[in-house]
Amino acid sequence: MKKISVAIVGASGYTGLELIKLLLNHPNFELSYMGTSEGGGKASDLHPSLLHVIDIDIKKSDPKEIANKCELAFLALPHKTAMEFAKKLLEFGVRVIDLSADYRLSLENYEKHYGKHLDEEHLKEAVYGLPEINREKIKKASLVANPGCYPTASILALLSFKPFIKENTPIFIDAKSGVSGRGKKITYSEHFVHVNENFISYNALNHRHEPEITEILNKSGIKNDIYFVPHLLPITRGMLISAYIQLKEPINAKNILTEFYKNEKFVRIRDEAVSVKMTAGTNFCDIFATSKNDVAFVSSSIDNLLRGASAQALANANLMFGFDEDLGVPKIAYVP
Amino acid sequence: MKKISVAIVGASGYTGLELIKLLLNHPNFELSYMGTSEGGGKASDLHPSLLHVIDIDIKKSDPKEIANKCELAFLALPHKTAMEFAKKLLEFGVRVIDLSADYRLSLENYEKHYGKHLDEEHLKEAVYGLPEINREKIKKASLVANPGCYPTASILALLSFKPFIKENTPIFIDAKSGVSGRGKKITYSEHFVHVNENFISYNALNHRHEPEITEILNKSGIKNDIYFVPHLLPITRGMLISAYIQLKEPINAKNILTEFYKNEKFVRIRDEAVSVKMTAGTNFCDIFATSKNDVAFVSSSIDNLLRGASAQALANANLMFGFDEDLGVPKIAYVP
Amino acid sequence: MKKISVAIVGASGYTGLELIKLLLNHPNFELSYMGTSEGGGKASDLHPSLLHVIDIDIKKSDPKEIANKCELAFLALPHKTAMEFAKKLLEFGVRVIDLSADYRLSLENYEKHYGKHLDEEHLKEAVYGLPEINREKIKKASLVANPGCYPTASILALLSFKPFIKENTPIFIDAKSGVSGRGKKITYSEHFVHVNENFISYNALNHRHEPEITEILNKSGIKNDIYFVPHLLPITRGMLISAYIQLKEPINAKNILTEFYKNEKFVRIRDEAVSVKMTAGTNFCDIFATSKNDVAFVSSSIDNLLRGASAQALANANLMFGFDEDLGVPKIAYVP
Amino acid sequence: MKKISVAIVGASGYTGLELIKLLLNHPNFELSYMGTSEGGGKASDLHPSLLHVIDIDIKKSDPKEIANKCELAFLALPHKTAMEFAKKLLEFGVRVIDLSADYRLSLENYEKHYGKHLDEEHLKEAVYGLPEINREKIKKASLVANPGCYPTASILALLSFKPFIKENTPIFIDAKSGVSGRGKKITYSEHFVHVNENFISYNALNHRHEPEITEILNKSGIKNDIYFVPHLLPITRGMLISAYIQLKEPINAKNILTEFYKNEKFVRIRDEAVSVKMTAGTNFCDIFATSKNDVAFVSSSIDNLLRGASAQALANANLMFGFDEDLGVPKIAYVP
Repeated sequence: MKKISVAIVGASGYTGLELIKLLLNHPNFELSYMGTSEGGGKASDLHPSLLHVIDIDIKKSDPKEIANKCELAFLALPHKTAMEFAKKLLEFGVRVIDLSADYRLSLENYEKHYGKHLDEEHLKEAVYGLPEINREKIKKASLVANPGCYPTASILALLSFKPFIKENTPIFIDAKSGVSGRGKKITYSEHFVHVNENFISYNALNHRHEPEITEILNKSGIKNDIYFVPHLLPITRGMLISAYIQLKEPINAKNILTEFYKNEKFVRIRDEAVSVKMTAGTNFCDIFATSKNDVAFVSSSIDNLLRGASAQALANANLMFGFDEDLGVPKIAYVP
Repeated sequence: MKKISVAIVGASGYTGLELIKLLLNHPNFELSYMGTSEGGGKASDLHPSLLHVIDIDIKKSDPKEIANKCELAFLALPHKTAMEFAKKLLEFGVRVIDLSADYRLSLENYEKHYGKHLDEEHLKEAVYGLPEINREKIKKASLVANPGCYPTASILALLSFKPFIKENTPIFIDAKSGVSGRGKKITYSEHFVHVNENFISYNALNHRHEPEITEILNKSGIKNDIYFVPHLLPITRGMLISAYIQLKEPINAKNILTEFYKNEKFVRIRDEAVSVKMTAGTNFCDIFATSKNDVAFVSSSIDNLLRGASAQALANANLMFGFDEDLGVPKIAYVP
Repeated sequence: MKKISVAIVGASGYTGLELIKLLLNHPNFELSYMGTSEGGGKASDLHPSLLHVIDIDIKKSDPKEIANKCELAFLALPHKTAMEFAKKLLEFGVRVIDLSADYRLSLENYEKHYGKHLDEEHLKEAVYGLPEINREKIKKASLVANPGCYPTASILALLSFKPFIKENTPIFIDAKSGVSGRGKKITYSEHFVHVNENFISYNALNHRHEPEITEILNKSGIKNDIYFVPHLLPITRGMLISAYIQLKEPINAKNILTEFYKNEKFVRIRDEAVSVKMTAGTNFCDIFATSKNDVAFVSSSIDNLLRGASAQALANANLMFGFDEDLGVPKIAYVP
Repeated sequence: MKKISVAIVGASGYTGLELIKLLLNHPNFELSYMGTSEGGGKASDLHPSLLHVIDIDIKKSDPKEIANKCELAFLALPHKTAMEFAKKLLEFGVRVIDLSADYRLSLENYEKHYGKHLDEEHLKEAVYGLPEINREKIKKASLVANPGCYPTASILALLSFKPFIKENTPIFIDAKSGVSGRGKKITYSEHFVHVNENFISYNALNHRHEPEITEILNKSGIKNDIYFVPHLLPITRGMLISAYIQLKEPINAKNILTEFYKNEKFVRIRDEAVSVKMTAGTNFCDIFATSKNDVAFVSSSIDNLLRGASAQALANANLMFGFDEDLGVPKIAYVP
């Protein structure tokens, strides 16, 4: 079989690097184009760990050049920039997986939290790329909006409990993420001395992923208000979600999860507390839940850069091109 | 002024070490006795960092010998062992600050979670050593039950919101602690490779500190059910509590906290998210709160070994002996 | 092509886990047998990260059963135990890669540092499995003694400088390793609170890897005395070697390295300081050197569990069975 | 006794913060002036951990204003800026302890490594502030050049071996420092994701502290060439030096150290390997040494911000004003 040519636009960040690493190991996709805003140099200049591994030139990202070469583009760009590229690439007939927030929300929700949208036309057709809820739509999509990391872990944690959640009660999501989730930007908030031996919440009840979680859960039938507080873990990679829900009546949380996800390849239901290390390096979402009286605690763990970004994007790419969802998608954790 | 002679029983653990360090700097207490279950050696054999700092012999803990020398004993012992010592010391007329769980709960609650109590007599007179709620009682107490670390941070976070919490709604406490909270015991759960770059919940909805929090809050007038889930942070020292409460109506959380704690020396209300580093090394409890609609998020940070154990014990000792509450109690954080 | 059946004996430790992970991805080897000293359970009971990844039963290690199924066995066992298994397996005609120290040293050297050797016969034929010096011998070997982690990094750092090192001058190796190098044993030395925010040397001038380094370097023509001091890094994975050599005359260290290793797939010569992260997750050894006057500083970085154990073992297995040395051997680092 | 009024110039960095913390606890010095380049705000705006601890205003640093108020100024400034202030303060009659490199080296050495010196006059009279070698001179000094962190640990490690080191052999110093040694500057080199789970050398054989070490050791009679390679540890605080020396003949390293430092309050000779944690939070320098044949390994540990900067500065201040060297100087480590 001839390989599918793909592009990475925005190859210099962490999710860009993860995409490169994943595509190097994929049997059916070929990484033919890597672009950054400036261009220049080799992949190993951007990411020294790639020395002697891949030797491709870095281009100044150009939609037309991409269209000449590639059938699919992954956009690992800041929001706003992403939709400028997506729009052009789609017009040239390139299928797009966008890892930014640009196509994840309804127009109204987007403009409330991110400002003016520049590509309403494609926004309408974009498919939210969480395979567990949109698998069939993803297969046919030209444009996949790859979910945020917090929403991925939160939605997967909550989805199965829809019939059991008490109406009009708030759902609380206490989230914790490693520092790689903040990207490569450099402020004192990412300084080693500030983060190390520390732990802190940020944007409490006011984070942009809250409306994403709310909108997707609402569409899935969970209409409760979501209250979301993220915290910064002094680790590089990984994310843990602790969700608290109020129930109509006592449940067997484990059974509900097991039944709901029984056919899913990338969700593992655990008997014991899930940990960040069990999923780091993989596309798995591990979930543990327990309940007491009419309250349940649900905890999910993902690799924020993989299931929360690049590996989920690859699973979506597999679906879009008719391959097995797990083809080349990592399942083996970095443990120890 | 002649210094008050004090003893530390259980000098080999982390809270024992913290007590030693605090007493070395205290102007009015003199550390005259350090005991362990085995005895033998010098303080610097137990804790090599104390070489050339303190030269005292370690004794095999003996209540009578302590009574001959000391007016006050700090017990940094496992529960059960603690009450055996407390009982004898009290009978000999030594005042006691017990850092274990043995005198914190009602008899009924204790026996439900820890088994048979062996000193019901003194349990009745024990004072729960949280100065913010029991300051006057502590001053006169012979036996102070020093609060647990999670309860200290949780109760201080919630106390001021009593009039505003909606009845019959659950309160969720998502707690995170550094590894020193587990003591020096050695299992794979404390192994560096297991903890590092990891994050995990434990004893979800089933931790022994939950009844302690519930009982004390109930006595303080907060009758809601408490749901408590602790997590293990990959750091040595520090604790952060994230509490979620449902309100009767919207509130100004900061103002409520500021007013409530305006005369407290060891509670700081913050305008921004509290972090573990701001309190590590001190007896401060830093609190931040924000609200949205009829929900509030309250976050508190303490040093689990200091405000959560040894420094709070010292503040209690100051109160018991008529000194200023903050005499020799650390306020300067280890930052950076 | 029919896959080669292989066994892992000692599947419960970190190097055992790494072997499992590597073999799962290998196109020509099939993991048919996993044994531990006790046996019982599934792979995912030993290593929870393997849930839904591999479902093989764990056996109580039995040489005969292995011989019935497998052409090759990897021994991830403590020394002494390793040679008991190796001896039997070799007699049954199974080829062996031993990750312990049992076949790395001359008889005299072994018995001086480890005590009585129990398999002198096979010791004679064992090949030291560092491909860069023994590639052709490894191809024909029945028994490969897989090098230690410190020796691998040290020897690769020093080898190319043989013609330039001043005679009768000591070579100093200041080595630093992550905690996974100590295995899963549980003492206070591996306790998170002890290791975190700490750094410490151990076995200074007296570590068992010193004679291994010395013996192999001597055989390679570097006759200088080696002085070796390892330190424990507060990280999970990775190793950095800093070697100091005295030269006959000034050199261009980079050119010497580049020329010497120009045909090697798993050695990368860097223009700038090497770091632990660049090689973690791979079989690469990255080397950087600089010199001043008649002194050179050489620094090498490897993943202690991969190039220092399991991935190097797999490269050796590839050579033994006539495959490309890099078949299925990881080159993509865990960065970030 | 009336307290001595002192100033901190450069109060925003880590060493500035440490000076504040130390002076708050000092019985004889009073912190009367805190200046930064911009001025404005309170101490707790610069350092949030100081909220409710100290309430002093931050001034825009002004030498004349300082001279009106203070007898002593600590300069925690970048080099070059430091000497501009020192010059003026000394002319106004204020005694100065400079924590920068500006007065540590001979004019020739300074200008070779740092460029043009702007205060040759005072350079001549500056005293290198390592009490163990210059105690008497410090007592009378108007200007103390506080040693660098690497030089402090390196010189203390090597000093006692002067009579035993073989002539014309190189001394190798393999040094490791926590990230706080790099200050608060923000580049990707201090980014958590870069530093965490990593270890790397920098400025190998080419660091500015090498000439400082060499010059001071030469003055003390050790004329050997020094080869110095620092590495960055993934920890916040602490420094470990591993030095390798070649000897005239075998020695008993421990005895030499013990005898040499028998009267020193801030040097501890250890029987076992020294660790970073044993000294973090204190002004101690812990030293361990061992030897084999005619080679010795010497390892020293200090807190880079305290013994390597601010606490040593305070010990120097004590000496300058006739107080006990250890008055208010921390001896109790942050352990655990």
